[in-house]
Amino acid sequence: LGVYLGVKDSKAGTARELLREAEEVIRYIGSSRPTARNLFWGLERIRAVIKEHQDKPVSFIKKAILGEANRIIEEDRASCRAIGRFGATLITQDDSILTVCNAGMLATIDYGTALGVFYSAQARKLRFKVYACETRPLLQGARLTTWELKKNGIDVTLLCDNMAATLMRQGKVKKVITGADRITANGDAANKIGTYSLAVLSHHHGIPFYVAAPASTFDLDMATGNEIIIEQREPQEVTSLYFKKPVAAKGVKVFNPAFDVTPHELITALISDKGIIRPPYGKNIPKTLK
Amino acid sequence: LGVYLGVKDSKAGTARELLREAEEVIRYIGSSRPTARNLFWGLERIRAVIKEHQDKPVSFIKKAILGEANRIIEEDRASCRAIGRFGATLITQDDSILTVCNAGMLATIDYGTALGVFYSAQARKLRFKVYACETRPLLQGARLTTWELKKNGIDVTLLCDNMAATLMRQGKVKKVITGADRITANGDAANKIGTYSLAVLSHHHGIPFYVAAPASTFDLDMATGNEIIIEQREPQEVTSLYFKKPVAAKGVKVFNPAFDVTPHELITALISDKGIIRPPYGKNIPKTLK
Repeated sequence: LGVYLGVKDSKAGTARELLREAEEVIRYIGSSRPTARNLFWGLERIRAVIKEHQDKPVSFIKKAILGEANRIIEEDRASCRAIGRFGATLITQDDSILTVCNAGMLATIDYGTALGVFYSAQARKLRFKVYACETRPLLQGARLTTWELKKNGIDVTLLCDNMAATLMRQGKVKKVITGADRITANGDAANKIGTYSLAVLSHHHGIPFYVAAPASTFDLDMATGNEIIIEQREPQEVTSLYFKKPVAAKGVKVFNPAFDVTPHELITALISDKGIIRPPYGKNIPKTLK
Repeated sequence: LGVYLGVKDSKAGTARELLREAEEVIRYIGSSRPTARNLFWGLERIRAVIKEHQDKPVSFIKKAILGEANRIIEEDRASCRAIGRFGATLITQDDSILTVCNAGMLATIDYGTALGVFYSAQARKLRFKVYACETRPLLQGARLTTWELKKNGIDVTLLCDNMAATLMRQGKVKKVITGADRITANGDAANKIGTYSLAVLSHHHGIPFYVAAPASTFDLDMATGNEIIIEQREPQEVTSLYFKKPVAAKGVKVFNPAFDVTPHELITALISDKGIIRPPYGKNIPKTLK
């Protein structure tokens, strides 16, 4: 839809001209954030449609872009529902599940990936508790996930990221389910910063750790998570509350990666829209997704 | 000093009356926070002095309380210096050390415990880097530690608590040094929430994990950390930034323990004012401290 918005009012007289403009828009949108795979996957889908119709009139190409965007919307909807359906089979009565960031209705077209699993379990009348890590520095867990889950009647408890280990030690976390921004061919998964920490803590406490993500998140051209480009963000996100009230020494150096990579060894299974994928991932992922 | 301030203007005519008032003040100060050991240790020291002089005039007892408080101050100063001296032997040239919360000049009479190790290493002209976890929810790491270290010319980098695992995986943390609020006879250590998480992460990454604390923090009457009372704090610390701007769904449940307990198995050594105490702690702690 972003590419469509970028070209819909174009004054291009020829398809060639429009193609050049669309390519510019695709490059611009692609420059926004480097880590998530399905941004690029979506842009490639749109680019392919444009190429396919490059000998058609300008108005036809514009419509084709919108058509493909609408197909992606429908596919995303179906994909969320499939992830929810597969993931809900992992939830048991009186379960308690920890999650991080927001992989729900506010992050996808439909009801989400990790949170979609909860909505699907809720539809099956299962009783369970969700613990939401606040997700510093931008607090997506606090701001988005608690709002979304509470609004939808799911029992949610908020905690700071550094409290998850204690919660696990107290036996209050039976499983962890997170989303993912990019999953490589060996099953390594990039996701919001803090995810890797939760994976290590889960491993230490013997708690299953699941990653829920659609096929569009899988990047089979990348062998391992070491190749994933991690977005580094500005110090002010950490040194000031909402870029306003300073909360740290002026000018202090800051380490602020927006994502981290969880190695496949720490992931119990991937919940994809094609089914639950268990290790060894290297073998199973391509088979499942091709 | 708190007890002295509580009784110095007392109109008590008899020692007996003053004792009753002092006992009231001691109870009140002791009710402020349950977890840290040396608050109670200090109060017991003062109580012992009062008991010792219970047959003396009121003015004499008041002076004795102030005298004991001043002795504690001097001892704390010496204790910080001893911890710093012992701890600095663990720091190597070009070291990089992670810490959490504030165990420095802003938390002790002198230059601190965990941070005292850094000041002592600095005095020995060692070159090293410190990483300070921001320490949610009250941000003591961001607000106090970065300010204190930067002011004193120590190379400090701030990070969110959920970024420590990534920093460790990148090989940027060579050791972790934290303070402690109470250490039990078996070597389990209560400290600011997030410490246990760092201990598990250190263990996973093969990074030495040290706890720096004076003898007054050791509670040999408690067998294990399971007996330690952990202070639970109000939800607003997590749901609002500084109790002002709301950042989570209204009325959401919150898990907000102020401290956690790190089991002794995860602690490489304790840096005390009596020397570096290595495991097995059960055997070594009482011998060292008696």
